[in-house]
Amino acid sequence: MSKRVFFNQTGPADVLEIVDWQEPSPQAGEIQVKVHAIGLNRAEIMYRNGQYVIDPVFPAKLGYEASGEVVALGENVAGFHLGDRVAVIPAFMFTEYGTYGETVNLPARAVVKMPDNQSWTEAAATWMQFTTAYGALIEYAGLKEGDFVILNAASSSVGMAAIQIANMVGAVPIAVSRTSSKARQLFDGGAKYVIATSEENLKERILEITDGKGARVAFDPVGGAGATAIIEALSFEGLFYQYGALSPDPIQVPVMDLLGKHLTLRGYELFEITADDGKLARAKAFISKGLASGALKPVIAKEFDFSQVQEAHRFMEKGTQVGKIVLTVK
Amino acid sequence: MSKRVFFNQTGPADVLEIVDWQEPSPQAGEIQVKVHAIGLNRAEIMYRNGQYVIDPVFPAKLGYEASGEVVALGENVAGFHLGDRVAVIPAFMFTEYGTYGETVNLPARAVVKMPDNQSWTEAAATWMQFTTAYGALIEYAGLKEGDFVILNAASSSVGMAAIQIANMVGAVPIAVSRTSSKARQLFDGGAKYVIATSEENLKERILEITDGKGARVAFDPVGGAGATAIIEALSFEGLFYQYGALSPDPIQVPVMDLLGKHLTLRGYELFEITADDGKLARAKAFISKGLASGALKPVIAKEFDFSQVQEAHRFMEKGTQVGKIVLTVK
Repeated sequence: MSKRVFFNQTGPADVLEIVDWQEPSPQAGEIQVKVHAIGLNRAEIMYRNGQYVIDPVFPAKLGYEASGEVVALGENVAGFHLGDRVAVIPAFMFTEYGTYGETVNLPARAVVKMPDNQSWTEAAATWMQFTTAYGALIEYAGLKEGDFVILNAASSSVGMAAIQIANMVGAVPIAVSRTSSKARQLFDGGAKYVIATSEENLKERILEITDGKGARVAFDPVGGAGATAIIEALSFEGLFYQYGALSPDPIQVPVMDLLGKHLTLRGYELFEITADDGKLARAKAFISKGLASGALKPVIAKEFDFSQVQEAHRFMEKGTQVGKIVLTVK
Repeated sequence: MSKRVFFNQTGPADVLEIVDWQEPSPQAGEIQVKVHAIGLNRAEIMYRNGQYVIDPVFPAKLGYEASGEVVALGENVAGFHLGDRVAVIPAFMFTEYGTYGETVNLPARAVVKMPDNQSWTEAAATWMQFTTAYGALIEYAGLKEGDFVILNAASSSVGMAAIQIANMVGAVPIAVSRTSSKARQLFDGGAKYVIATSEENLKERILEITDGKGARVAFDPVGGAGATAIIEALSFEGLFYQYGALSPDPIQVPVMDLLGKHLTLRGYELFEITADDGKLARAKAFISKGLASGALKPVIAKEFDFSQVQEAHRFMEKGTQVGKIVLTVK
């Protein structure tokens, strides 16, 4: 028997229950992992609240990220051995799999070997953020040396990952935040410029930074009213990737910018990458290389014990952290 | 001496002057054409009014399209001979070249041989509309058999060209117009469905036509408030090409559609195609094939004599025509 987190109704963190559970033997194509650390994501709070893209089926499991050791292999799984140190990539639905447990089965395509230099905590905090940022910035935008890239809500884990990925390819990350309170952490995290939208004019600052040309790429989880200034600050043939909807308001696109600069606006989700074998393989290769070299290193905000899963969710809901929240499993 | 149209101030059609003019010998890379017909475009009215993307330099020439015979060749021009029947592709700026004249020099890359089955009038009315529609629908969107494509303001010459291009590749053109007054002409022009937005709910109709899936591609010169319903009517991974700004208002993009359907919005201009040698060559090949087979055939609204250039502009400004307005040169 091992412990696993379920919930039987949507609601606040209190609905999360830690129950004794016997994980079945892994089926064909699955790997069983003894979990050492679990990375938390906002998606799990939305799912728990009944506000996610899919509705929970009770008893509902959850969790997109983890690290641990391979303890059993299903049939038709190649390239893994018992005892391998592995991490989990969010390439499944919560209705099928979840990482919140001491022992969990996972699809082999969502499992990747950890580089030697990573700790359990770091490995559990890697793949959601770096794969999300990788997909838009590298796979789609082809970010390269000298490109200016606007990263909105840059203090989020995906924002911090995007800063590192931009630096890894020699691009210039411009971190955007509402206030300047997180500026120090953003600079420490690798941002070349920090713009606080409540204190500065974003468009003017970007034009100043880019010698009037504008930034070639923007990556934004907010949208809404603030997106207009970001769109206006893009260069000729600029690319705008929307990867979240923190604002429910429509994005107002100025048509002369769209047309005159041949801009592209694109709604983007991580699952475009993880559902496609070729894109997933390229993501694994790029991120593994960055982790091994030290160019990519997740920022950890705070660790909680597995038994404190409710407290960890409540902490994330306060939204004050910079970086990832991780549950450690003894 | 031959006659050529110039204007020396911006303003209404009255500013257009027909003057006696000696066209110089063609320079290297230029072809001199004895013009037989001139296709008119809204861009010329905007340029005449001082409302175009570039400002006129007086005395200002204008005109993007024409057909005629090759009467002189500059140096370094390959593939053309005196007497060739040719048409003009808009691959230049009015500050450099213009087609409104009896004899005009043009850059060789903007000249294409006419298929045998085209008249002078048709050839002068072909390349702006078909190249514009080709670029977004074929070069970028990869429109193919079975795709549903929403064509807004479909009774414009580009709209009618887009209907034919959609049919040429086996896609399903859905023509959108403000009222149903042009429905008969749109069906005659090849539209499979016609939606009058002032009389029907666009989104509901598109979902009905596409079995709830939405259309994969939209092509819209209007933008503004009406674009939102078109965006909502797109399918998963749908593509929206904005190629004009008939409405000056921002486009309101519903963020859950953008994100949940991984939509792409793209500002598109003809000059992306005509300024790129590879894209221009593919456009010439695709359109020439369609003209030769009869799949593509420009719709002519009305012909005027060259001497009636002012009347022709005034007629276009009324906006009641379906298809192209052409000046014929005796």
